[in-house]
Amino acid sequence: MSEQQNTKSKMVGKQSLMFQNPPIILASASIAGKKESEGPLGTLFDEIEEDPLLGKKTWEEAESELMRKAALKVLEKAGLASRDIRYLIGGDLLGQLIATSFGIGELEIPLLGIYGACSTMGEAMTLGSILVEGGFADRILAITSSHFAGAEKQFRTPLDYGNQRPYSASWTVTGSGAVIIADSSFAPKGNEAQIIIKGVTIGKIVDYGLKDSMNMGAAMAPAAFETIKQNFEDFGVDPSYYDKIITGDLGYVGKQILIDLLKEKNFDISANHMDCGIEIFDQDNQDTHAGGSGCGCSAITFSSYILKQLREGTWKRVLFMPTGALLSQVSFNEGNSVPGIAHAVIVERR
Amino acid sequence: MSEQQNTKSKMVGKQSLMFQNPPIILASASIAGKKESEGPLGTLFDEIEEDPLLGKKTWEEAESELMRKAALKVLEKAGLASRDIRYLIGGDLLGQLIATSFGIGELEIPLLGIYGACSTMGEAMTLGSILVEGGFADRILAITSSHFAGAEKQFRTPLDYGNQRPYSASWTVTGSGAVIIADSSFAPKGNEAQIIIKGVTIGKIVDYGLKDSMNMGAAMAPAAFETIKQNFEDFGVDPSYYDKIITGDLGYVGKQILIDLLKEKNFDISANHMDCGIEIFDQDNQDTHAGGSGCGCSAITFSSYILKQLREGTWKRVLFMPTGALLSQVSFNEGNSVPGIAHAVIVERR
Repeated sequence: MSEQQNTKSKMVGKQSLMFQNPPIILASASIAGKKESEGPLGTLFDEIEEDPLLGKKTWEEAESELMRKAALKVLEKAGLASRDIRYLIGGDLLGQLIATSFGIGELEIPLLGIYGACSTMGEAMTLGSILVEGGFADRILAITSSHFAGAEKQFRTPLDYGNQRPYSASWTVTGSGAVIIADSSFAPKGNEAQIIIKGVTIGKIVDYGLKDSMNMGAAMAPAAFETIKQNFEDFGVDPSYYDKIITGDLGYVGKQILIDLLKEKNFDISANHMDCGIEIFDQDNQDTHAGGSGCGCSAITFSSYILKQLREGTWKRVLFMPTGALLSQVSFNEGNSVPGIAHAVIVERR
Repeated sequence: MSEQQNTKSKMVGKQSLMFQNPPIILASASIAGKKESEGPLGTLFDEIEEDPLLGKKTWEEAESELMRKAALKVLEKAGLASRDIRYLIGGDLLGQLIATSFGIGELEIPLLGIYGACSTMGEAMTLGSILVEGGFADRILAITSSHFAGAEKQFRTPLDYGNQRPYSASWTVTGSGAVIIADSSFAPKGNEAQIIIKGVTIGKIVDYGLKDSMNMGAAMAPAAFETIKQNFEDFGVDPSYYDKIITGDLGYVGKQILIDLLKEKNFDISANHMDCGIEIFDQDNQDTHAGGSGCGCSAITFSSYILKQLREGTWKRVLFMPTGALLSQVSFNEGNSVPGIAHAVIVERR
């Protein structure tokens, strides 16, 4: 590879990458909980788990099981065995990624564990695309999960305490979403539309000093703002370049902050912005307050609804940007802020 | 990039990668605690922190400060500013990577957060090399940290409890190590030897069912065994290919298990094996029992001692393999095992 290719072709602007040979999304799978199945996207998930414990003894084991099932499902849908996957890139919200470690161990796929809070699916798809496009892997499995009860226990208070939830609080999605990212040579032959990953914008940590663990939307919105703005600058585009600009889980509070922050920079995304946390639940009837959140929220929304819209041609190009609040019970209890991060992936129908 | 390159050249065997245009290690830095400075490698670290709190109020903030200092030091040694680094790849042992989030935020470098327990430096260098070699970045900063007091609080019991430590227990290193991985075109001109990253072997989760949080060496040894064996198979080499085979922090207990497991497969690494956890402390005089451990252990040993031996030509080629025990206080308290993982990096003097 020549020096020119190294320094000019793939790196775009300050934080973005444009792929020369864009990888494709070969298959996707989504496993969701009961509450998610009762929401607006309920009919689109591959499998619904009625039992929040999935037959296990702990919330953490239940989340591992969600991830295990999502990984097996996406392999099944792609007609592949685990040995056909070169590397698995995944993560979850729990300390030391225990949902992932215990969920995907039996697959025996070499693992790159990642953590970006609820932005993790964006990071997994980013790294997956990089590995495939650079010739480091033929097929990558990218996966994340979250579980409402496990997340409340980890980050706030166990459900048994009956803690009250303010309207700014989001509802962590119980679910796991997975995609297989592959070299374009693996595209099925025929006239079927291909879904490609065209480029990415890797986010920075952005910390406006917010300290409220019950308002993740406000903590993440500044990071979402910075990554979207950088995406526009790096690629020289404006909001109209995308049919949809899709954030992970800003919810109703964060969505408005994001739109306002971008308006100050003369970018108006109000017409084509969508948030997975808003789409996944029915705010009026599901008592989910600010909306859905968690690693699983954007992952199952992408694996079901968003990919469906792209496959059917309703949308041609979207900016998919899972958003993460780097919340930890330890730093929170020590009085620290909640920094945010967001990674954006350009997904296109071809 | 042709299809042939994509599928044949870089992917080697089942789990490994061989780089066509190997990236170089441009600079390294190590910040270590007082106890580490009193060990056999004490004179090699760039900076010593006498105060275990580094002037902060909590162990977690102290660890963030270690990481901040290591990042600034490696930039200073390379003569670079943070804007010269395309992406930062880093992680630590704490839940939700808070040492990293709060440590490197002010640098404003786009972040890919990773978690692989004490194997994290191997994962960071692996991904950093991939991004540079594939033309996705010109310069990457790879960094990890750990802190003895923070790790005891997170994983076992706070120091104030005066818990007794069995001889199989390791001592988490207080320190942060960082390297800058760059495209070979950035190599300083002249006769100086270059240190290159030639290839990697990405590890799987390996779980032999061990449940003792006071015996991390035994939990990690099977993962180390699997990755080394795979490295030999994928590259078609035997132990003599490397001047040193360097594990992260198996300690005295894990080292013997690893050597025994490999002997059963007819690989004898006893003559050229070295473990960072054994090198970093003086077992007889420092009361560190099985040896050093933690994300920082292999990172500061690599950034100081190992790179020095390569630069001076004492060694020409090493297999550097940080080893991780995927321990979490939650899964541990729920009675689960401690799975292991290990990622290997081939580092060569050229």
